[in-house]
Amino acid sequence: MGVQSVELVVIGSGPAGQKAAIQAVKLGKKVALLEKRKVVGGVCTHTGTIPSKTLREAIMYLSGYRQRSLYGRGYAVKKNVTYEDLILQVNHVVSHEIEVTNDQLTRTGVEIIPGTASFIDPHMVSVETDQGVAQIKTEKVIVACGTSPYRSPRVPFNNINILDTDTIFSPNFKMNRLPKSMLIIGAGVIGTEYACMFSALGVDVRLLDRRADMFRFVDPEILEALVYQMRNERVTLYLGKDFEKVEVDEEMNVQTTLENGRVVNTEMLLFSSGRTGATDELRADLAGIEVGNRGLIKVDAQFKTSVDHIYAVGDIIGFPALASTSMEQGRCAACHAFGIPVSSFKHYPYGIYTIPEISMVGQTERELSEAGTPYEIGLGRYREIAKGKIIGDSTGLLKLIFDQRDAKLLGVHIIGEGATELIHIGQAVMSFGGTIDYFVETVFNYPTLAEAYKLAALNGLKRLGWTPGGRRDLEIAINSEGASEEVLE
Amino acid sequence: MGVQSVELVVIGSGPAGQKAAIQAVKLGKKVALLEKRKVVGGVCTHTGTIPSKTLREAIMYLSGYRQRSLYGRGYAVKKNVTYEDLILQVNHVVSHEIEVTNDQLTRTGVEIIPGTASFIDPHMVSVETDQGVAQIKTEKVIVACGTSPYRSPRVPFNNINILDTDTIFSPNFKMNRLPKSMLIIGAGVIGTEYACMFSALGVDVRLLDRRADMFRFVDPEILEALVYQMRNERVTLYLGKDFEKVEVDEEMNVQTTLENGRVVNTEMLLFSSGRTGATDELRADLAGIEVGNRGLIKVDAQFKTSVDHIYAVGDIIGFPALASTSMEQGRCAACHAFGIPVSSFKHYPYGIYTIPEISMVGQTERELSEAGTPYEIGLGRYREIAKGKIIGDSTGLLKLIFDQRDAKLLGVHIIGEGATELIHIGQAVMSFGGTIDYFVETVFNYPTLAEAYKLAALNGLKRLGWTPGGRRDLEIAINSEGASEEVLE
Repeated sequence: MGVQSVELVVIGSGPAGQKAAIQAVKLGKKVALLEKRKVVGGVCTHTGTIPSKTLREAIMYLSGYRQRSLYGRGYAVKKNVTYEDLILQVNHVVSHEIEVTNDQLTRTGVEIIPGTASFIDPHMVSVETDQGVAQIKTEKVIVACGTSPYRSPRVPFNNINILDTDTIFSPNFKMNRLPKSMLIIGAGVIGTEYACMFSALGVDVRLLDRRADMFRFVDPEILEALVYQMRNERVTLYLGKDFEKVEVDEEMNVQTTLENGRVVNTEMLLFSSGRTGATDELRADLAGIEVGNRGLIKVDAQFKTSVDHIYAVGDIIGFPALASTSMEQGRCAACHAFGIPVSSFKHYPYGIYTIPEISMVGQTERELSEAGTPYEIGLGRYREIAKGKIIGDSTGLLKLIFDQRDAKLLGVHIIGEGATELIHIGQAVMSFGGTIDYFVETVFNYPTLAEAYKLAALNGLKRLGWTPGGRRDLEIAINSEGASEEVLE
Repeated sequence: MGVQSVELVVIGSGPAGQKAAIQAVKLGKKVALLEKRKVVGGVCTHTGTIPSKTLREAIMYLSGYRQRSLYGRGYAVKKNVTYEDLILQVNHVVSHEIEVTNDQLTRTGVEIIPGTASFIDPHMVSVETDQGVAQIKTEKVIVACGTSPYRSPRVPFNNINILDTDTIFSPNFKMNRLPKSMLIIGAGVIGTEYACMFSALGVDVRLLDRRADMFRFVDPEILEALVYQMRNERVTLYLGKDFEKVEVDEEMNVQTTLENGRVVNTEMLLFSSGRTGATDELRADLAGIEVGNRGLIKVDAQFKTSVDHIYAVGDIIGFPALASTSMEQGRCAACHAFGIPVSSFKHYPYGIYTIPEISMVGQTERELSEAGTPYEIGLGRYREIAKGKIIGDSTGLLKLIFDQRDAKLLGVHIIGEGATELIHIGQAVMSFGGTIDYFVETVFNYPTLAEAYKLAALNGLKRLGWTPGGRRDLEIAINSEGASEEVLE
């Protein structure tokens, strides 16, 4: 196999790589997309977002989670949900997504080369394919090789009952029955999402993290609501505690010894403590790319690495490592690489698919306090709107954060059913520079969860006192007093 | 009981009356709220929106409707859903809503007088209470007395198996088992919502209307999708057909003879053909109020009746007769009555809780065609986004309508899971005068149904040709070609 010449090599076909490749082709560039798996999609499609969110949806239904408060716990659809029940739907969605992605890439004109990529020099990449090794000379490179779960040397992974979050969806992995108990090490987003899912299935879940505070980027009030709900679902939290060793006894139970000597005995252990850049075979050194802690690549605001013509996007550059954000990074990096101006998008949403789900956009109280911005908040509780009652979500909470001086919306934080969808209403208002008056004046469908915005805005105006700057006319001022009712309807 | 004097009498405590009364109290007025039922809430809480939407949610769950496409029809939570299962949750939500409403009204300082109201003269209203008849002298009146189901004289209602939509939720009504078959007469919003609900429960539903076209205010493409789905759920539609007579045979089956002589034989008949103003006891004539067709009251843009100091709001003034809109009418009417300026809200959403649900905001293609506005559309299908696949909604459709000249958003029409919530994203963008570029540039949580907006916007830009007016920079222009993929991810 000879030397091929292209204008852009993209390494990795997850959301970031896909969008980078497509954007470059649209710019008229010759693009080669290198993917070490047999099929496209990256971690997102194979072991990350897609399978885990599908699993979550299947669990929500089969366990009757959403209806427990309405009909009691006895109403589960299947009394004994098996892993097979769950994985069936996952496989179905994953194959569909692979097909869709593949179709989109090839139709756009992206050349997909299946094989493991490694740098030979800054402008030359080799790909080890089934047919042999190919060499590709390229003008630019976008590295979107993603991450894989970090595996602590203190954990004797066996892929039977000591797993990482990739193993769960591995085709070779079988779970003949759901474990009675499970220790999850790592209370990051991924570990916590799994903790919620397995506890909804009735597994006795323990969640351990050596850090004392979970989710530092999430509003503390929202986080408290999550923790409350998790405890209510009988998740045991061991925060601020590290483990010393993990052993398997003769009955295949996992014995995890904590620092303080306490032994946690569970049927299964899921290790979910960080991810490392999938840079092992990349030979980033031969390109001159600086690789940081845990194999992550540092980039500047334009996603440029330490090498001028090489960019990196997606999970490999670290936080937030979300599919949604990665896509945008990929698109922007391709534009930057070829000198096309891109306006940077400001109001990135964050979605965390815990149970209940969490979503946020804009700033947190902590950030505003640190910046010295005078802000006020407004709270809307699902239990005070008809739809919350109808669907049985009595714990949902929507929090608006706005400028105390002009009521301009600065952040929205939601926990509860539909949070990841509802956040986009607030995101739109923020993007247009709107104030919380928008929500007071708007007529919402009844009954909807979206009404929580109105409730929160009325609550916020009440906290402000009714007429900041005399800007509002009497009508709204009057309405603002309406916030003295905790309830809207 | 003597004569009491107030500044405002509100007749009826449904959503419109509640908000009118609250608004007037906030304006410092002395308000009497007259309600002929024992408890507040009106049709909305007792036999309308709240019970029917709760019933719908219960049906969606207990029938396993949402998961059929994922797990097959065998997965229903309860094999034999009884009416009692369903009504249990309805009663729970209804009592809660009554409590909340009552609490809010009394806490605000609204005096609630339970009793039947009738005019004595334009400024004097009598109320027949349990304690006798009271007379109330008032400066202003807001009539929010609502409607009751119209009962055709050709239908022998028996409240056993020939019902109207109020009977269904009557405390005296018992349905020992779900009927095998049901004819619904009237394919308006209410009749169609019930047709969807009962067919989801496995009832053989026939829906009859003498009008040939359903839902003329709904986008035809969205309506077609609904009709397709309804037929798929085995609803039989008899449109453009009137009935001649309804009889009950010796086995208590309902024999409905259509105009053309055909006889439709069903176990039950639900009559849902229009509603009439609940003005029977009102003696509107003594106030000088002109009452129109089917007892509805005509009002001007300020909700004023033919009498200067008397206003009417809510279902009694006709279309759209939605709780959300009625609340806003109530609030506005109270302001108008006391000369307080109110800005009129423009972008009312419409929510129709069929299965799947429908929501819309802004204009339709029909309206724009008639107005001669050059417009273009963009379509986003749920089956092309990951979340659609995950939840198994393969038929959802989001349609953007925008100005062909500047891509300004003019309307959003959605059918599918979450439509009534998702519409509020488009509503916000419309309210700020945004273009569909907003959706192209925005990062959405992944996976969400909200992504259908992006998909639809890309599709719309593609239809436009990529650079209308050179207004967009290259980056977006390029993205617009991305719309050549039917799929986003």
